[in-house]
Amino acid sequence: MNYEHIFDQAIERLHSEGRYRVFIDILRNRGAYPNARCFAGHNGPKPITVWCSNDYLAMGQHPKVIAAMEEALHNVGAGSGGTRNIGGNTHYHIELEQELADLHGKDGALLFTSGYVSNDATLSTLAKVLPGCVIFSDELNHASMIAGIRNSGAEKKVWRHNDMAHLEQLLAETDPDLPKLIAFESVYSMDGDTAPIHAICDLADKYNALTYIDEVHAVGMYGKRGGGISERDEAAHRITVIEGTLGKAFGVMGGYIAADSKIIDVIRSYAPGFIFTTSLSPVLVAGVLASVRHLKESSAEREGQQAAAAFLKSSFAQAGLPVMPSVTHIVPLMVGDPVKAKRISDILLAEYGVYVQPINFPTVPRGSERLRFTPGPSHSEAMMRDLTAALVEIWDRLELRLAA
Amino acid sequence: MNYEHIFDQAIERLHSEGRYRVFIDILRNRGAYPNARCFAGHNGPKPITVWCSNDYLAMGQHPKVIAAMEEALHNVGAGSGGTRNIGGNTHYHIELEQELADLHGKDGALLFTSGYVSNDATLSTLAKVLPGCVIFSDELNHASMIAGIRNSGAEKKVWRHNDMAHLEQLLAETDPDLPKLIAFESVYSMDGDTAPIHAICDLADKYNALTYIDEVHAVGMYGKRGGGISERDEAAHRITVIEGTLGKAFGVMGGYIAADSKIIDVIRSYAPGFIFTTSLSPVLVAGVLASVRHLKESSAEREGQQAAAAFLKSSFAQAGLPVMPSVTHIVPLMVGDPVKAKRISDILLAEYGVYVQPINFPTVPRGSERLRFTPGPSHSEAMMRDLTAALVEIWDRLELRLAA
Ligand SMILES: Cc1ncc(COP(=O)(O)O)c(C=O)c1O
Ligand SMILES: Cc1ncc(COP(=O)(O)O)c(C=O)c1O
Repeated sequence: MNYEHIFDQAIERLHSEGRYRVFIDILRNRGAYPNARCFAGHNGPKPITVWCSNDYLAMGQHPKVIAAMEEALHNVGAGSGGTRNIGGNTHYHIELEQELADLHGKDGALLFTSGYVSNDATLSTLAKVLPGCVIFSDELNHASMIAGIRNSGAEKKVWRHNDMAHLEQLLAETDPDLPKLIAFESVYSMDGDTAPIHAICDLADKYNALTYIDEVHAVGMYGKRGGGISERDEAAHRITVIEGTLGKAFGVMGGYIAADSKIIDVIRSYAPGFIFTTSLSPVLVAGVLASVRHLKESSAEREGQQAAAAFLKSSFAQAGLPVMPSVTHIVPLMVGDPVKAKRISDILLAEYGVYVQPINFPTVPRGSERLRFTPGPSHSEAMMRDLTAALVEIWDRLELRLAA
Repeated sequence: MNYEHIFDQAIERLHSEGRYRVFIDILRNRGAYPNARCFAGHNGPKPITVWCSNDYLAMGQHPKVIAAMEEALHNVGAGSGGTRNIGGNTHYHIELEQELADLHGKDGALLFTSGYVSNDATLSTLAKVLPGCVIFSDELNHASMIAGIRNSGAEKKVWRHNDMAHLEQLLAETDPDLPKLIAFESVYSMDGDTAPIHAICDLADKYNALTYIDEVHAVGMYGKRGGGISERDEAAHRITVIEGTLGKAFGVMGGYIAADSKIIDVIRSYAPGFIFTTSLSPVLVAGVLASVRHLKESSAEREGQQAAAAFLKSSFAQAGLPVMPSVTHIVPLMVGDPVKAKRISDILLAEYGVYVQPINFPTVPRGSERLRFTPGPSHSEAMMRDLTAALVEIWDRLELRLAA
């Protein structure tokens, strides 16, 4: 048994497919976002503009968030010191769960250490508690949902992305007496399209299925109070479990679910991924509390983001760049090849101080490698014009055909 | 399909077994640890002493840790804003990985959002990368290791706790040509005993197996620089993967592995639980950096903890309380019944301002429910004398037999 050789081969596979990942070493400058420093190469930190952050609304730099975290740090210290059950249940956690339940109009909410863990722990536990449960999963669901579904051991039926006829066909052919759970996202973050929530809920009603929505790329950003697409579409009350992250639009870190209190109690009591881990640092929780409360009241960040996304999309389109048809704040440019996507990204960083990470397999299907831009309220129109010009120059240089 | 009814039954089972968990709502007071405030009941916050925190060395309140977090908060903001690959790889993360690799004398290290995730992601990925891998798992391994092993889909063979003859028997009967991984903990945190690391590594050498050690309850606390039991026993170089948490003795939040750089690269490149999640907040990472660096230099916290644990064990033993035979900083008192354990804990909190959580199934086997005390450098001898007197009074009141 030559372990070394197996590990070598695993890495070699990535190199040969052009998808070995090199992490870019950066530090953002608080108060100056999207400005940051990049530590690549030998010439010390160099200023860059970040175009691929999921701190979508720059809340990670909001004075209220920073102040709340500083206060908690001085009030209670760094970590929680325990699991939620053993010493790590602080008053901050309880307050935030109430705030998130209210955000989604649900009875209860439950915090996890990340959005990934909230999906993995909740989906796997829910399906285990419901004997014989069949899970219906959109084919573009996120890796963390796929992990939870796989780890549940439940039967999984995958429906073609957003295809209601296909979902109905799968529901109809399943034993009516079995528990059913339909799992999907509200905003698909690599394409920028959204799910037809009401149509899915209609099918759930018809076939007596529970529904689970991942609103990770929507909470904070859609709906009057930032409750996500389910708030915007007035569908939250129709959904069994709403899942979200605290690490993207809310700007900090962590994940959660909101649901009726019975389901919250079941997950709280049975999910190993919730039970057997140190709870979120109260410093993070305090920051999220400030962020959620601010975004419930203020729509300026949401409006700024939508305006920036609209401007960038039309700027790309006018320049003939292959911008993908997104209906959200996400602005993807199709490249279709992992090596070229990396090359464009490298040139942007080295020559233009523009940081946008190439997106490759397994994050997106092979052959659909892309650059994914997330303009926000702090990206100015001048920045977007410069970015467009840079891309056109690189597209010419690399002889990539411009979109019709 | 009556979902409501199934959820009700799931919760009812917990009540009927006396193990429905009620979280105690507390806030610690920075600088005054183990002092804290409890929000239970209607009479507003009430002062308590925390005896069950895993912030073992009170590093979550250390001035260097607080200062480092405050600086990072002002320097870069709240969250990382992305996965390690897409925008969330900061200079703090890279520095901490170097610091942790050095702590364990390994080439590399990799950060995760928690110790739970580091176990789950690493074990499941390692076994998937090694086709046909058989995992040998100590029967008392933590839930997060069990999750990782289960999620790998690999064959698992469970050896009786710390029983080398049994482990050897299982290794010997396994096909020599299959990859093998032996997974165990250094300190078993509910009993306070330790693993015979060299004996396990001898077997690993003999049967050509990889080794994986969970040092979650040892890092920071054992070894000259806080490298854990593997440092203390001079065995770190014999172990393939060392896993630890940043949320217990280091006082903050997060998890990691340390190993040779090839294995680190494999996990970094293939583990969904590492790839598809927002990276640790740089604020947390900065705090951990300060904590790890401090504990590499300073042994005062470790010595204070060992002295406190020795004092409390002998105080319990002299009073005839059923203290379990721990060789570490963990001081468990056997109760053997979930309802009684909860009752003792409730009286301690209500009448004595002592917070110690009862430990019940599934954290420990049924019938071995216990109270688990974690005295640290900040618990005074007077506090420990008072605690012992309180326990003797309660043991008398509830007519629990004192140990011989
Ligand atoms: C759709 C989706 N769900 C869940 C997650 C995980 O959330 P978190 O980053 O908080 O772990 C992500 C991305 O990270 C995501 O894109
Ligand atoms: C042995 C062991 N491993 C791993 C973990 C998980 O570490 P974390 O709390 O950082 O998730 C714990 C406890 O929480 C533990 O006791």
